[in-house]
Amino acid sequence: MKEHGGNIYRASRETGIPERDIIDFSASVNPLGVPETAANAIRENIENLPNYPEPFAEELGKELGTRLGIDPGMIFCGNGSTELIYLAARALSPGKVLLPSPTFSEYERACEVLPGMRYVRYLLRRDNNFDIDPDEFIDAMEGCDMAFLCNPNNPTGRLVEKDALLGIAKAAELCHCHLVVDEAFIEFIPENSIISEVEKNLSLIVLRSFTKFYALSGLRIGYGVFPPGLAERVKRFKEPWTVNTLAQTVGIAVINDKAYEAESFEIIRQEKRFLEKKLSGLGIEYVPSVANYYLLRIDNARRVIASLREKGILVRDCANFEGSWRYRR
Amino acid sequence: MKEHGGNIYRASRETGIPERDIIDFSASVNPLGVPETAANAIRENIENLPNYPEPFAEELGKELGTRLGIDPGMIFCGNGSTELIYLAARALSPGKVLLPSPTFSEYERACEVLPGMRYVRYLLRRDNNFDIDPDEFIDAMEGCDMAFLCNPNNPTGRLVEKDALLGIAKAAELCHCHLVVDEAFIEFIPENSIISEVEKNLSLIVLRSFTKFYALSGLRIGYGVFPPGLAERVKRFKEPWTVNTLAQTVGIAVINDKAYEAESFEIIRQEKRFLEKKLSGLGIEYVPSVANYYLLRIDNARRVIASLREKGILVRDCANFEGSWRYRR
Repeated sequence: MKEHGGNIYRASRETGIPERDIIDFSASVNPLGVPETAANAIRENIENLPNYPEPFAEELGKELGTRLGIDPGMIFCGNGSTELIYLAARALSPGKVLLPSPTFSEYERACEVLPGMRYVRYLLRRDNNFDIDPDEFIDAMEGCDMAFLCNPNNPTGRLVEKDALLGIAKAAELCHCHLVVDEAFIEFIPENSIISEVEKNLSLIVLRSFTKFYALSGLRIGYGVFPPGLAERVKRFKEPWTVNTLAQTVGIAVINDKAYEAESFEIIRQEKRFLEKKLSGLGIEYVPSVANYYLLRIDNARRVIASLREKGILVRDCANFEGSWRYRR
Repeated sequence: MKEHGGNIYRASRETGIPERDIIDFSASVNPLGVPETAANAIRENIENLPNYPEPFAEELGKELGTRLGIDPGMIFCGNGSTELIYLAARALSPGKVLLPSPTFSEYERACEVLPGMRYVRYLLRRDNNFDIDPDEFIDAMEGCDMAFLCNPNNPTGRLVEKDALLGIAKAAELCHCHLVVDEAFIEFIPENSIISEVEKNLSLIVLRSFTKFYALSGLRIGYGVFPPGLAERVKRFKEPWTVNTLAQTVGIAVINDKAYEAESFEIIRQEKRFLEKKLSGLGIEYVPSVANYYLLRIDNARRVIASLREKGILVRDCANFEGSWRYRR
């Protein structure tokens, strides 16, 4: 399996720097850290741990449904959105899968164990900031059973605008290709979400995570919205109790934490401005990003990354993202 | 999906009794509740939740390996042992599966989505306390690709003694049937575990859980030990980050908590004696059990269960375990 960002344990073992002293920029989570509402919900629920969680996180699903205006029967909560990626792949068992490159590597890993599965790669190009061209993507979907689209994309931070994405989703429905839109970072630009479209589009699946925006990578909460026709099919494959008791309670607490949300928008806005200015000042080439991370082009990147790591600062080495994209200009 | 025990949320919604006032005997967890070592580990690690957990819980696996004298490369930690049931089924994709009846229903649910899978049922009989007859079980394994054996069995509390189980495991290896021994309740009678046999038997898989003995159902920690040949095959199917950060830390803390272990043995011993005496006194027929639960035969069971539930006391209705076993004497 490919190395992901966020492995402070390995970095700590290898550098000798204690985990708590490591500054981790490699996993792109909210710099505000754990919401106080989440910490309180955890402390208050420790004594409830002898009880099993709700098998399918029904209460959290209902809260999400109310907030999003979506039938809770279409919502599956999971052990991070990663569980939903694997669940969708397993339940729908696509024969031919479209993957942008570079993108989050778990889409590929979830599919590669499926019998008879083949990939089609849509290579993103440096010359247009790694943007997905909607027409090209629609053409590439033709003949595929499933397509993954991370929006904004990881690691580029590039967004397919809502109207263009709706066009892609419509085309997916027409050519009977399941389109899995991963909105793990959409909370930073919520107006671009197409989650409310799922009930109108039989081929659209939207995944969401609490990991990034709420800085809760360690607790494991995500969810997916599946159209009514697929939800029943997927449910047969859904494992029970995957969202732990603390995660379910915290999930309900943080989606109602408006103060954390507002403060997050503010700090991300400020820090993005600061970072872009400083990167430009240093002459470091970066891909303009709508999210809380940037893909940089640095000469001697490997040396820079190693040197930062020795100082206890982790950044993500994007050289191991799949595809030949990094050699293209 | 069948209703399991331990759903206090549903019971609370349906009875109007607050969750905290429900006394739950339906999930068979340790009555001592959350170990203080676990509660402390959680409190101390809340601030670490922005960090991802180790993808495959390597540190916990190493601790378990040291304690059990097993190569950590053979150990997979999971979101409760339930994840490992589904993982084994998926990775080994058996065509024909042997299931005792009654037993834990997730074995069946994990296999029923596999393409082309068929079941063979080994019906347990009331006339011998639902004991597994080793020779009969070995005969039944013939021609099967996978067999599940919960030891002690859930819901009967009956144990296959170690020597007999080793005979079954040997036979499984000879007939190339993957034998999945679920030791979710073995901590109550640890001398009967066959976990150390896995490295010598290419067909043996042993599953363990922190749920029952450590009263941590809500946190989701379990593990499976796979023989070297299978471990590599299974790893391709293993999803990352399924054991949350708190669960990993707690797992390491509680396996070294000798005081909780000793106190648990003592209270279970006392309470079992008390319960057996009282059940006999009341003339209630029970299956002798090595574990912390009993299968009872009660006339008008449904009415008794409903009446207890109205008082906020949950017991498990075992009528929905698979098979016709309950009608046999």
